[in-house]
Amino acid sequence: MHGQETGGDVGCGGSGEPPGAAYASSDSRAQRARRLADMLRQQIIGGAFEEGRLPDEHALARSLDGSRNAVRAALDLLRAEGLITRQRGVGTRVVTAKYGHGLDRLTGLAETLHGYGEVRNEVRVAHLVAAPPRSALERLRLPDTSPAVHLERLRRLNGEPLSVDTTWLAPDIGTPLLERDLAGRDVFDLIEEVIGGPLGYADVTVHAITADRDSAGLLGIPAGAPLFAIDRLTHLPDGRPVDAESLRVRADRLTLSTALHRGSR
Amino acid sequence: MHGQETGGDVGCGGSGEPPGAAYASSDSRAQRARRLADMLRQQIIGGAFEEGRLPDEHALARSLDGSRNAVRAALDLLRAEGLITRQRGVGTRVVTAKYGHGLDRLTGLAETLHGYGEVRNEVRVAHLVAAPPRSALERLRLPDTSPAVHLERLRRLNGEPLSVDTTWLAPDIGTPLLERDLAGRDVFDLIEEVIGGPLGYADVTVHAITADRDSAGLLGIPAGAPLFAIDRLTHLPDGRPVDAESLRVRADRLTLSTALHRGSR
Repeated sequence: MHGQETGGDVGCGGSGEPPGAAYASSDSRAQRARRLADMLRQQIIGGAFEEGRLPDEHALARSLDGSRNAVRAALDLLRAEGLITRQRGVGTRVVTAKYGHGLDRLTGLAETLHGYGEVRNEVRVAHLVAAPPRSALERLRLPDTSPAVHLERLRRLNGEPLSVDTTWLAPDIGTPLLERDLAGRDVFDLIEEVIGGPLGYADVTVHAITADRDSAGLLGIPAGAPLFAIDRLTHLPDGRPVDAESLRVRADRLTLSTALHRGSR
Repeated sequence: MHGQETGGDVGCGGSGEPPGAAYASSDSRAQRARRLADMLRQQIIGGAFEEGRLPDEHALARSLDGSRNAVRAALDLLRAEGLITRQRGVGTRVVTAKYGHGLDRLTGLAETLHGYGEVRNEVRVAHLVAAPPRSALERLRLPDTSPAVHLERLRRLNGEPLSVDTTWLAPDIGTPLLERDLAGRDVFDLIEEVIGGPLGYADVTVHAITADRDSAGLLGIPAGAPLFAIDRLTHLPDGRPVDAESLRVRADRLTLSTALHRGSR
């Protein structure tokens, strides 16, 4: 039988309670649901279910070693995440594959999603600003009196909103972009066309936040839905920062993935 | 004057509207608040404010080039993220530095946070399970009849809950861990002690989700608060997967960061 524990529990070091006590006393349904949801999410993202169709609760309960009640509660959590839909008679379906954005090298969104469909950008802001915010100038290491280019694009994959990307660009790099195909192409691509060679590197910081009213409206999700907020400062090969982005990305549609090596300390 | 646009707008390619129209018509306060919040978050995380004390709204409005109303709305968003507190007479303070977890190499939490304070783990589950869920066995490429070790730890930094880490371990690797200091040490460290050498690599997938009831209770945050849900499958140097983790990490306390290079396509 699955789920049976061996007689020889080897305790909960450091909890100060007798072996097994912490486990037994706190193993509520909410807790089991959380654990099952994490396992199921991994399976869904890993492509374990053919054609995005999940087995029925009974079969899931068997393979995940949970009760049907706990499985149902786990499915409720994943439905709240926007990962699956459940419908009487139709069963449980994966809404759509989440798109995996690799964290192994610097890529633009359209480049990453090539193969998933067509990325189109609604250009919401595209200006040379004479007196940009001081904070943007500092980030780009520009003098106090420098102009900068402000871009904001709502990015759609196959028509569905995926992210809002706002950026400040150094004027020499950004100005030529204003005459190019901002609706159809990645900014990285366009910059490389302008500089005639590859970009250098980016410092990337990833936050998980919830959608404010404005982001929710733009992205077609409820306020409070999870988002990635990504700061990305991209540099030329010589180290000069030229592209200071803030991305807000729907977390029900995108995951970030990478392979990490243990390496040396 | 800050914020003044140059006369020569170079339009919003692809929006189908006259240049500047999309900008002007949609530049609501919520939108300005979102943009300012993203800039401010970046500054806060970048350590721009000495001793975690933000300037008053007036000074922020000047440096961010926003109205005081928009700055106030942006600060409200960051307060909702748990990043700052605001108090009459005291002003606006950063709650605590977010801890940056690097995505450049494979590290455990205690290892990453060394220097920020003491990581202690409440060991909630620590068992050899005779018949683990089939999904866990598949992930670890173990035979149907294999036992596996189940661990769950609530991790605290300086006493404050930071993450819940649940994992299934191959029995030969996991069983010796049950007798070691799971309350005080990283599992990676312990595994390396057992195998007498370094781990290999991990496949990592990062999701942004919101806290379910159980995670919220464990982590001391409201239900609905943002979390990172991280799947991490760690392998020995020979490629065998031995540690299949699900982490739920408070997003108000941790960011993920990395430097990405453009590299070759």
